[in-house]
This record gives sequence, C-alpha cells and structure tokens, in this order.
Amino acid sequence: MSRSMERIPKPSYLARCAVLAMALEVSGTPKPGNIDRDHDYPDTKYEDFLAAAIGVYPILERACREGGIGELILDSSEESVMWQSGGNTHFGAFILLFPLIKAASVNPHGIQDAAISITRETTIEDAVDFYRAFSKVQVKMKGSDDLDASDERSIDEIRRRGLTLFDIMEISAKNDMVAREWVNGFTRSFQSADMIAERRISGTLNDAIVLTYLELLANEPDTFVVKKYDLEKALYVQGLAIDVLERRMTLNELSRRLYSEKINPGSSADIMIAGIFIALSRGMRV
Amino acid sequence: MSRSMERIPKPSYLARCAVLAMALEVSGTPKPGNIDRDHDYPDTKYEDFLAAAIGVYPILERACREGGIGELILDSSEESVMWQSGGNTHFGAFILLFPLIKAASVNPHGIQDAAISITRETTIEDAVDFYRAFSKVQVKMKGSDDLDASDERSIDEIRRRGLTLFDIMEISAKNDMVAREWVNGFTRSFQSADMIAERRISGTLNDAIVLTYLELLANEPDTFVVKKYDLEKALYVQGLAIDVLERRMTLNELSRRLYSEKINPGSSADIMIAGIFIALSRGMRV
Repeated sequence: MSRSMERIPKPSYLARCAVLAMALEVSGTPKPGNIDRDHDYPDTKYEDFLAAAIGVYPILERACREGGIGELILDSSEESVMWQSGGNTHFGAFILLFPLIKAASVNPHGIQDAAISITRETTIEDAVDFYRAFSKVQVKMKGSDDLDASDERSIDEIRRRGLTLFDIMEISAKNDMVAREWVNGFTRSFQSADMIAERRISGTLNDAIVLTYLELLANEPDTFVVKKYDLEKALYVQGLAIDVLERRMTLNELSRRLYSEKINPGSSADIMIAGIFIALSRGMRV
Repeated sequence: MSRSMERIPKPSYLARCAVLAMALEVSGTPKPGNIDRDHDYPDTKYEDFLAAAIGVYPILERACREGGIGELILDSSEESVMWQSGGNTHFGAFILLFPLIKAASVNPHGIQDAAISITRETTIEDAVDFYRAFSKVQVKMKGSDDLDASDERSIDEIRRRGLTLFDIMEISAKNDMVAREWVNGFTRSFQSADMIAERRISGTLNDAIVLTYLELLANEPDTFVVKKYDLEKALYVQGLAIDVLERRMTLNELSRRLYSEKINPGSSADIMIAGIFIALSRGMRV
C-alpha cells in the first residue's frame, strides 16, 4: 500500500493510526472483563473510550513533531477527560503509544529500535510530568516502591534522586506490564502486532483482536488485576484464559465470569492498543 | 464548558466533534436497518465506519481553514476508502458536515445562518468536484433529473449551464433528504441536534441517538430507501417507525425486520451525523 511505502509517515497519518488503534481495541468483542462495544461498567461506558481516543488526536499528531514523553502523557491525560465522563480511560495506553508514535515518525522501518532509544533518552522532566499526570488521573498503583504517585513530595524526590522516566519504569517494571514494555523493548507489543496482522489475513479483524487479547491473558498475569485485587486473582484469570485456548471453556463463559466478577485486565488492553497501532502503522487495513 | 465558550473554536476541536459524531452515530444501537456496533452487512462492517470517520480527520480540520465544499467532499470520499474495505460509508454525511463545520468555525453561535450562506455561495467548481466524488463512490442516485452522476458529459453540462453545487442540490432536493437540507436551511439536522441534546440530559447518549433516529424515520420516508427500492418500501419503513413510537411494535421487532429485509435508511443516518455534530459543537458531552 502506498501509505506504508512512504519513507517518513505524515504526523496526521500516524495520529489517525493511533486513534484507530484505540477505537478498534475497545470495539473488539467479546474481550472478557474489559469494556467493549457490548459491555459497559457502571462508571465508564464504551462511548467514553471512543470519545477519549478521538479527543487526544492533536496531541498524538504533535508527538510526531515535538514534546517530551512525560509532557505528552500529561497533556493527553488532561485532554482525554475533557471529552467524556468515564474518567481515566487510556493512561497505560499513552505510556506505550507516545514512544511508539515518535519512533514510527522518525524510523518507520525500525520502530522497535527507535522506541527503545526514545524511552532510554527520557529525562527527569519527563518523570516529573508523568507523576503529575499520574496523580491527576488518580490511577491507583502500588508498584513504584517508595514513590507515592499522588504525593507532591515524590516530585521533589524524583528531582533529588535524578530519576528519569525510564528509571521510573524500571522501578515499576516488576509490578507493571506496561512499564515492563519499556524495559523489555516493547516485546509483547510487537508480538501482539505480529499476531494481529497474521490473523487478519485469514479472518476478521475482530477475531484477530479477541484471540490475541486472549493469548496475552494466557501468557502472564495481568498486572492491573494484581493491583486492583491481588496476584491470586490475576493467576485465576490467566488460568481461565488457558482453559479457553485449550477448549476446556468457551470464550463466552470466560466473558460472563469476568464481567460478573468485575475483573478488568486493563494492562493487557493497553498492550493490545500498542500492538494494533504497530500493525496499522505497517499498513494493516481495517 | 470552556470549550463551547471560545469565540472561534479551533479547527482541531471541530474536526474532533465531526469524527466523534460519525463514530457515535454508527455506534448507536439498535438503529434499525443501518450498520451499528452490533450489525454488519456482508460487504461493510461496523469497523469500516469507524476507520473512515477517523481517516478523514485532516480534511475536516482543513475545512475550517480553506477549501471549497465540492473539493472537500471529493477529497474525503477518496480518503475514507483508503482506511477500510467497506467502500462508500459517509458520502451523504460529508455533504452536510462540510458546510456545518465551516459554519461553526466562522460563527459558532449562528451555525445555521452561516451554513445557509456557505451553501448558497458554492460555485460551479464545487459542483464539478462534487460530481467527480459522486462517480468515484458510485453512489447510485436517480434524483438529479437529466444529470447522470457517473457521466463525464455531465460535468461539461454543469459548466455549460453554469450550475453551482447549490443548484445541483436544489435539483436533487425533491428526491433526496440530504440535498433538501441544503435547500431548507438544515432544518432536520438542527431539529435532530436539539432532540439529541435534550434527551441526553435525562438519559443515555445511546438512547438519545436511537430515539431521535426513530423520529426521523417516522417523520418522512427515507430517500435512500426510495432510491434503493421504491417509495412504497420507504413508506413501509415510515409506518413501522410510527408503530414503534406509538408502542404497537417493539424497537427490536423493527430492528429484526429491517435487517432481515436489508432495508438501510442511510439518509436518515446522514442527518443524524449532522445533528450529533451540531450538538457536540455546542458543548454536549459524551
């Protein structure tokens, strides 16, 4: 396709791929436990995710030209809540999308290497902006050891210790799959991209998204579930996903269970968004 | 809300409202007969509409700054098919959205008057570009009397007779609800905007969209259905919609019938998009 042949993709092209990745991820159904086109939660609905995804377009486009990763995460967190009433929708996804979109805009044929460099070049200011975003969206995260997200003192502490955003992600990686992507070179995101694109060739895009999500669940315990509940609950979800892949349980049964128990594996959804974005930016079509 | 208070809305704000309007319209379910989040047709699926809506973002943004209505419809028709595999998705919607988005960008507190002026100021070149778009998306329209859409001779004829795009819409208005909006000052679009915004106050956005769509169906025969089938079929749909509003039939029963009979009232969906856009640009939140 002509657009994937362009040497340097236009910012508007990559920004549309990123918005579309968020829209397709939340539309994929049934995506057990997470909000999808047929499943809302009491405080957040499907349309909130669509509106937030579209609302951050200008910040995604700007990311291809300028702006630190921390500042971009902060701005998009603020902008996304202006467009809907469901609160934080894409915080984890932004952590992955901004390095990836910047990478795709400078090196479309080596996105992974470029993203690794970009994350390693983040600064203390990126870390400070990230923490500001963190406290605003009120993400409850127990991961980052002695740094309390919602505490202004933490920002002084970041400066005192000279921590970059990459350092923060290294500290968080143990307990957070999204942070782990920064440290492990976006391995899961690129694996997901390959799986989605491959499955898209012979099946529907929805099936490609749902099956890849299921494999993510089966591969490792979702750290969002660990934080919201505990490791036991996350291992329970992982076990059920394996049961579905090995045909001991239907997808619909898994779906019914996770929704009724309000278990939403949000970090796996974030990685799915990164994977869909990579696949779209390489030319996959809807 | 602060964004609705701005004197001159930013192009990026209005373009996001337009993309979101298209995304919300196609998501509204059940929207009997038309593609929605739970209903695909064999050749076109829900995701095609999402991708097309997001894909035309840059042209919507450009519309706030420059570009003739005909050229914008042509460019967006071409761009929208680059992002998905469902063919023409939003041709009728573009005919309404471009005058409205231009109007909102110059006069946010008098969108209707501005849109009326903008349509009346269209040129012969707008008409020519519109016909080019028309033949590309292969919309089959019998309405415009002696002008055959897919015929290059028609373009010579447009120039010879000195027809503007407004003239074309006047000719088509008799048989086309979308063209009629241009001639009647976007009456149905603004009525829909008011109904959606009012219903949104006390109910869900989805219900507001579905009920307003139902009223559009009940108000007059959908001209897309007339063109695809005949007037009798369109009157049949209108009668059923009245039955639902007067509680002689359930919404789900109407839905089952129209989907199984493959009757898609596409012009009413176009007007819904215009209505949702107007409501969003005035500050309605998701």
